[in-house]
Amino acid sequence: MTRLVCCAGCTRTAVVDGISAAGADADLLAHTPSADAEVLVYGRPVRAPAVPVSPTGCPTPAAVTRAVVDRLDVDVTVVDAGLAEPTGAPAVDVGASPGGDVRQRDPVPDARSVFEDARRVGRELPDDDVLVAETIPGGTTTALGVLTALGEADVADRPVSSSLPDNPLDLKRRVVAEGLSASGLAPGEASDPIEAIRRVGDPVLAAAAGVVAGAMEADGVVTLAGGTQLATVAACLRRAGYDGPLELATTSFLADAVDVEALASAFSLSTTVTDPGFGSDHPAEAGFLAGEAKEGAGMGGAFALADRRGLPMGAVRSDLREWYDSVLGADREVVTS
Amino acid sequence: MTRLVCCAGCTRTAVVDGISAAGADADLLAHTPSADAEVLVYGRPVRAPAVPVSPTGCPTPAAVTRAVVDRLDVDVTVVDAGLAEPTGAPAVDVGASPGGDVRQRDPVPDARSVFEDARRVGRELPDDDVLVAETIPGGTTTALGVLTALGEADVADRPVSSSLPDNPLDLKRRVVAEGLSASGLAPGEASDPIEAIRRVGDPVLAAAAGVVAGAMEADGVVTLAGGTQLATVAACLRRAGYDGPLELATTSFLADAVDVEALASAFSLSTTVTDPGFGSDHPAEAGFLAGEAKEGAGMGGAFALADRRGLPMGAVRSDLREWYDSVLGADREVVTS
Repeated sequence: MTRLVCCAGCTRTAVVDGISAAGADADLLAHTPSADAEVLVYGRPVRAPAVPVSPTGCPTPAAVTRAVVDRLDVDVTVVDAGLAEPTGAPAVDVGASPGGDVRQRDPVPDARSVFEDARRVGRELPDDDVLVAETIPGGTTTALGVLTALGEADVADRPVSSSLPDNPLDLKRRVVAEGLSASGLAPGEASDPIEAIRRVGDPVLAAAAGVVAGAMEADGVVTLAGGTQLATVAACLRRAGYDGPLELATTSFLADAVDVEALASAFSLSTTVTDPGFGSDHPAEAGFLAGEAKEGAGMGGAFALADRRGLPMGAVRSDLREWYDSVLGADREVVTS
Repeated sequence: MTRLVCCAGCTRTAVVDGISAAGADADLLAHTPSADAEVLVYGRPVRAPAVPVSPTGCPTPAAVTRAVVDRLDVDVTVVDAGLAEPTGAPAVDVGASPGGDVRQRDPVPDARSVFEDARRVGRELPDDDVLVAETIPGGTTTALGVLTALGEADVADRPVSSSLPDNPLDLKRRVVAEGLSASGLAPGEASDPIEAIRRVGDPVLAAAAGVVAGAMEADGVVTLAGGTQLATVAACLRRAGYDGPLELATTSFLADAVDVEALASAFSLSTTVTDPGFGSDHPAEAGFLAGEAKEGAGMGGAFALADRRGLPMGAVRSDLREWYDSVLGADREVVTS
């Protein structure tokens, strides 16, 4: 059986001006992962106030993933990796709290216990095929933090992606530098990846690394369903001695923006990059083509699954458009505020 | 779409000597609902130490329900209605804590907020067909408490069932009397059902009543998938003015032990009682025939669904036996301790 495990959480780093588009509006940012969880599980928000959309109306990648897992009947499990707002989706508790601002000391004090709890969950999943995904606004900045702390930030020109069309990489680097300094770490000085997550990371990295580690220990086939944040998870696991095969399944949108092959080579990953053939004639798809929300909530992994199972991408697109029209068509003004 | 919502929680009342068989061993009782949640979602325990079984080897009803929902591909959502031990199953958070011993004052201080949170979840479920179930060791005693506080305990000779072959009803009545006295309530004195749950009930009753109330408000078809605890939920909702149609779908095992029709008539419920045709030649089925674990985790509702969807009961039995042999066959000694 195949299961998509999505680690959903928050980091206060997301509210740094200019860091994240996930959720568009600062007030809604904290709701984004809770809403994504609901979209993955139920197909629409339940307790969360709105479907996350960018200011131009690009929907959350969770909606795309949902279209695929719903068609293929793939089990989805949400892990509460530090949600700041309540979610109506069932979520596995690994004892995570929302992450602090990475510019302050110790933003993920419980990184080790979250990793260990999630590792246990990963080890005990009854599935032989596990896709691990993430949703956390601001997560590429904390990923850059961890890569920098581990001395791996120079493996690619742009080691992390962005939910914005223009990746504010300089801003992220400044935020990370401030974070390292607050935690008394020099770049490359962290030898223990969990320590790096604790000092300059986020709880989703801890949980995702744990689930992947556990699933690898149980000899499952593990797919990192995502982009640079999941590549950072791989960096952590390689450093921790997890040498087994790992695939990174991501989107063409992400691959257009960062050097996926450089990351894959640095962390010994096989890669699957899928282009879903989105068009510019419908708001459900156009934003992705324009470089918004390139990856997240397992979108690339879902595309890879669809391909592998023979689900035509045209069916995914048509479900997505129909979903968009019915869920977002009427009240787009309201939710994009 | 159809969804089974199982409210899983604990009450300290379960550890009163002689009250509950759910989990067989006092140390395992607190794990039972967490394990049931995992069995429902994954088909086997993940974080919980063992499959709940009675001393004679009768498996938890959750295994039976799982066999049905797995075949019919019904979505299952677990609500954390006060779990005392961690579960690896994803669970919806409604802010519930484990219930206290009903013999003490105020065993469910958060009954009202749990009800309201669960009501919101029920209202927002995207399904038009919702089955609501429970798993809580000791739950029939707290159900008796609530019925007594509401003045409804005399609607049937045996208003509540038991997970034991011989229902220790006198013990339950003594425990309830002690609880009412600790909470300063006379039998029949509670007019507000949430107040009754708060004073002499358990958090699963609060959550289940909330989910049912919300789903009724959203005009869903709601099935009470269970026995006397779900009938108690109906008693609470009728008292609160929820007058819409409600069906109680339960097992023949339960109907053999209590007067389901008297409960149904008292609380204006339609009923479906299903006999799954279990045999005495296999430990997966024999215990149920002997009157153990008559209902729970939605077993009766699952049977009703199977019937309605044309799933032959023989297929359910054969899946259950196969599951039993593979999951419990080898280490029965260990888990029954």
